[in-house]
Amino acid sequence: MKNCLVAQSGGPTSVINASVVGVIKGNKETKFYDKVYGGINGIEGILQNKILDLTCLSDKELEILKYTPSSSLGSCRYKMKDFREDESEYQKIFDIMDKLNVKTLFYIGGNDSMDTVSKLSKYAKLKGINKQIIGIPKTIDNDLWCTDHTPGFGSAAKYVATTVLETYLDSSVYINNGIFIVETMGRNAGWLAASAALAKINGRQVVDFIYLPEIPFSDEKFLKDVSKRFKEKNKVYIVVSEGIKDENGRFIFEMKNTKKHDGFSHTQLGGVGNYIKRLIIQSGITSRVKVLELGVAQRCAMHSVSSVDIEEAYKVGKDAVKYSIEGCSGYMIGIKRIRNNPYEIETVKVEASKVANDIKYFPKEWITKERNFITDDAVSYLKPLIEGSPKIIIEDGLPKYIDLQYLLKYAVK
Amino acid sequence: MKNCLVAQSGGPTSVINASVVGVIKGNKETKFYDKVYGGINGIEGILQNKILDLTCLSDKELEILKYTPSSSLGSCRYKMKDFREDESEYQKIFDIMDKLNVKTLFYIGGNDSMDTVSKLSKYAKLKGINKQIIGIPKTIDNDLWCTDHTPGFGSAAKYVATTVLETYLDSSVYINNGIFIVETMGRNAGWLAASAALAKINGRQVVDFIYLPEIPFSDEKFLKDVSKRFKEKNKVYIVVSEGIKDENGRFIFEMKNTKKHDGFSHTQLGGVGNYIKRLIIQSGITSRVKVLELGVAQRCAMHSVSSVDIEEAYKVGKDAVKYSIEGCSGYMIGIKRIRNNPYEIETVKVEASKVANDIKYFPKEWITKERNFITDDAVSYLKPLIEGSPKIIIEDGLPKYIDLQYLLKYAVK
Repeated sequence: MKNCLVAQSGGPTSVINASVVGVIKGNKETKFYDKVYGGINGIEGILQNKILDLTCLSDKELEILKYTPSSSLGSCRYKMKDFREDESEYQKIFDIMDKLNVKTLFYIGGNDSMDTVSKLSKYAKLKGINKQIIGIPKTIDNDLWCTDHTPGFGSAAKYVATTVLETYLDSSVYINNGIFIVETMGRNAGWLAASAALAKINGRQVVDFIYLPEIPFSDEKFLKDVSKRFKEKNKVYIVVSEGIKDENGRFIFEMKNTKKHDGFSHTQLGGVGNYIKRLIIQSGITSRVKVLELGVAQRCAMHSVSSVDIEEAYKVGKDAVKYSIEGCSGYMIGIKRIRNNPYEIETVKVEASKVANDIKYFPKEWITKERNFITDDAVSYLKPLIEGSPKIIIEDGLPKYIDLQYLLKYAVK
Repeated sequence: MKNCLVAQSGGPTSVINASVVGVIKGNKETKFYDKVYGGINGIEGILQNKILDLTCLSDKELEILKYTPSSSLGSCRYKMKDFREDESEYQKIFDIMDKLNVKTLFYIGGNDSMDTVSKLSKYAKLKGINKQIIGIPKTIDNDLWCTDHTPGFGSAAKYVATTVLETYLDSSVYINNGIFIVETMGRNAGWLAASAALAKINGRQVVDFIYLPEIPFSDEKFLKDVSKRFKEKNKVYIVVSEGIKDENGRFIFEMKNTKKHDGFSHTQLGGVGNYIKRLIIQSGITSRVKVLELGVAQRCAMHSVSSVDIEEAYKVGKDAVKYSIEGCSGYMIGIKRIRNNPYEIETVKVEASKVANDIKYFPKEWITKERNFITDDAVSYLKPLIEGSPKIIIEDGLPKYIDLQYLLKYAVK
């Protein structure tokens, strides 16, 4: 008897469960593993023996799980120590896998999770443990190396672009509309903020400026941009990434939380959106400034999911089973773009160690020379990722989702 | 030759343009008016002669307009003086209507707009001016009297409930999840916050507490609620209306902006969500507290529109033409619910003066005795309003919308 185990780690996405379903369906087709177990709360929960038998899930339940956002198996932010420092956790994990006849662990996550994949697989190789660890990518930040893009990003980008389009219309109704600011997630990388450039009405971009973490943020340059555009149009629509930094590479968000910045004492409540709002008001451009922080809705808005994204999340899960049958370990299943028209991808295996703990930034060559917008090449890259709206399951006017509590009935004793 | 004029006023909704399209289609069917004009920026713009000829719009364009959120004709917040004080504006409006052979003005808006409808129609009657003014309701706040509910509310409620469902899943993934707070709009009335009670998974409500403006907010009672629930479940999901008030009827939001509250000096950035976040943290319940302010997305999220809502917005516009043919003036077209199963409504005409400047609060009898949730009767009232998801027009993965700039080519010279 040989089984596999799948778990989720890091921040959720709208489509991270589609990858779990991909693993289960991939195994249903190949019948390679007898059981598919689910680890609750990632490595942290596996270490506590929190494991479910997912093989019991019906096709109907799998269909609902595929279209349920956020990590249904729970998540963790747990960094494993180097095994040369402490190998007790490594031993424990492999013991637990052994007890359940688990040959392969599929670990769905971002840079940090690929660190776990890399560490566990290296340890197994070194100790001659015949077990495989395979990474499945996910992150709305799109900041993983060795993959064209990450599952989860397309849906988040679609949510950002859709909300930008709609709030642009909302912010344009009065004679004096003022300035509207949207703050996106994305941490150190500007991919999500950049996706606002997809928002167009009659072929015309609605966003005036996009400020990315990849370009050092200058208060003076920013106020010059905004002041000029406000004079021309009497309104400005701005998108800013939560991760913008100053010239010394310090997060603006961190800066404004230090006592040094007396002028901005009201700091702990908002992010950079409120920071640049204050810049505008203090500069006297206008006092009519609104901020919308998109917040966690970006990473769980299944009601605005992209078909391309959810099907790719499903595919990397399914293909992970295929790669595991070939015996690979220590790899992440990446996405390679074959072409844009018609859009086509294939999955590839890439060494998890090359992805671990590193950040793929938004390319400088895709930022305009004014440093406040993205190029047409970048738009061409982004465009296919938000295509299509699958028919999600609706009950009483709302999406039908399942949650972890419901799955606990399958807990392994 | 006789024409009509339609305009929009107050805060936008997702479905306010469907009412404009309803007027145009109602006239196409009855052929009662030769032309349908559109006033830009409501009464404020009409006074500046900003008027378009909407009769030129093609069926294709009308279809896109119907599914475009926010006020495509622009809006205003303009309170007309009592004509006994100053009748110059009254004369000007009727002169402009006269010049364009406009017999009827359809004015889409909330309480304040019904004040305009009431004032203009009274003036016309008094002066023997043979012109009709008819109000068409809209507001996401659902706070208008003499109508079962308002167009715009159902879609906002659906967006709130959907986002609550999704962020509940997002906020449940870790071993220690902490407390999640969603702040809704709704001003003085709790209808929008209440709609979060629609969010269920496996038939179980996901929201722990809903705090409405109709119940005086007590810090002590709130902390008691939250502390108890947090001990039981190790997580709490809270929905709070932006309009909650203290026992003296003062907005909490206003209070925390006064100097009197030294303990909360970081005030101007956030709303009540951040206020109650600080209460929780200061009380020591947990420091893991997240706030999501839904903001203007609530009133423009066409991508999450309710079929019932958009079709009713369309119907009140269309029926307004029918009522105008009967010669009525000074009325608003209200919605009367006939039954819930199957859900059915009809339109009725109600005196605009009875709606003007007044607020329909969330009924006290629909609030639970613990004063932190709504009853099953309230849920039964809300449920039909979010039903159905129309197929909106999609282009390149995003909704296809039109905007005001595009309409300006039809401006009347």
